[in-house]
Amino acid sequence: MTYCVGLLVRDGLVMISDTRTNAGIDNIACFRKLHVFEEAGSRVLAIASSGNLSVSQSVLSLLNEGLPNADTGGTETLADAETMFQAAQMVGRAVREVYRRDAASLEQQGSHFEASFLVGGQIKDGRLRLFMVYAAGNFIEATGDTPFLQIGETKYGKPILDRAVTFNTDLYDALKIGLISMDSTMRSNLAVGLPIDLMVLRRDALEIELRHRIEPGDAYFEDLRHRWSEALKTAHLAIPRPRYGQPVS
Amino acid sequence: MTYCVGLLVRDGLVMISDTRTNAGIDNIACFRKLHVFEEAGSRVLAIASSGNLSVSQSVLSLLNEGLPNADTGGTETLADAETMFQAAQMVGRAVREVYRRDAASLEQQGSHFEASFLVGGQIKDGRLRLFMVYAAGNFIEATGDTPFLQIGETKYGKPILDRAVTFNTDLYDALKIGLISMDSTMRSNLAVGLPIDLMVLRRDALEIELRHRIEPGDAYFEDLRHRWSEALKTAHLAIPRPRYGQPVS
Repeated sequence: MTYCVGLLVRDGLVMISDTRTNAGIDNIACFRKLHVFEEAGSRVLAIASSGNLSVSQSVLSLLNEGLPNADTGGTETLADAETMFQAAQMVGRAVREVYRRDAASLEQQGSHFEASFLVGGQIKDGRLRLFMVYAAGNFIEATGDTPFLQIGETKYGKPILDRAVTFNTDLYDALKIGLISMDSTMRSNLAVGLPIDLMVLRRDALEIELRHRIEPGDAYFEDLRHRWSEALKTAHLAIPRPRYGQPVS
Repeated sequence: MTYCVGLLVRDGLVMISDTRTNAGIDNIACFRKLHVFEEAGSRVLAIASSGNLSVSQSVLSLLNEGLPNADTGGTETLADAETMFQAAQMVGRAVREVYRRDAASLEQQGSHFEASFLVGGQIKDGRLRLFMVYAAGNFIEATGDTPFLQIGETKYGKPILDRAVTFNTDLYDALKIGLISMDSTMRSNLAVGLPIDLMVLRRDALEIELRHRIEPGDAYFEDLRHRWSEALKTAHLAIPRPRYGQPVS
């Protein structure tokens, strides 16, 4: 299982991903799912992936090595995308190419073609943008109204995002809330787990501001988990018990 | 969509259910999904249902009108169950009977046979118990380690249950936490909505202690939603921002 979240706020972009991959609960391994393509001063792209690991790794290999372009007859890599929109389109075409190659064989073996991607970043003087690309190669974009996108095991971690994140949220508050969302997911689904990869890209910086892997024992994350757990307990204790059916005192 | 949760704590049982049913987002209606069978002093059973409405209503009708019993050649109703285990088995047999009658026709029309049930209560001098019955008619039981069961849209409301509910939780705290869980679900999935039906059964009372429908405008529930929302915001503000990549001060 996987959980990845991207948050696009006024000051920048945060992307967070767990690293756990499993084929059944007795076959659990750690793979990087957050990939950063950076040419400092010119472009920063980050791609987080969810779904069948062979599919998402093939998509990333195609984006690196060259994807057939039917229009030009040549191949193109992610480095050729001149805008974030073109980058999202290219990820979509790579997914369709892997589908064309692998989907029928996967189905024959009872495996389902599953893949989704978060594609965030900024290219030259274009806008900082964040997209979610589906298995069909189509995609949607985060907006000021909904400044976050999630892939994988998304539901456990959504309530805190729904309540706490707006476009005006501080960049490092967005990182913090993203980590709380990740914590909620890990608490309720053991197939999502540490380490966690994260990156922070400030708007118009064209250079990664922070890249970090949270390993087991990370002091900040352990403190966050503890404080959040205590805060939730305190929060519900501060709410009066229901008095339905009892006389109003 | 549906969300129902049952909480079995030391002092009793709480069951909570929304009432929204939809077939596509333009066909939304309100149906009771929490059904209580009570013979005060002798037995109280509560059944909450999720899934295809025609399936769950047929199951309840069979339990009321009489289910064929292959062993005796006669029919039996829920009133014939002499223990909670027998009641859970009977719900399972009713699901299988509806499957036998309807599943093939449902599939022909592209509809899937979906149904799950929470079955809670106490019969005479038996224990207060809570079961979850699956579409296959098999079932599991809440235990001291995991004193709650959920059906329907379960994930949004699970983190608070995972953190806050134990077997020793006060009965009306359990009701309160169940309502917070319902609120989280309603906030993240618009297809789960008011009114909410709830009931509280105190252990060994053999008589419903509280039955209530929360309608829009319910003062307690609106206050709970507001307080919980504010508490979540305050909770994350009280956690320091991450300082990864910055010198330790």
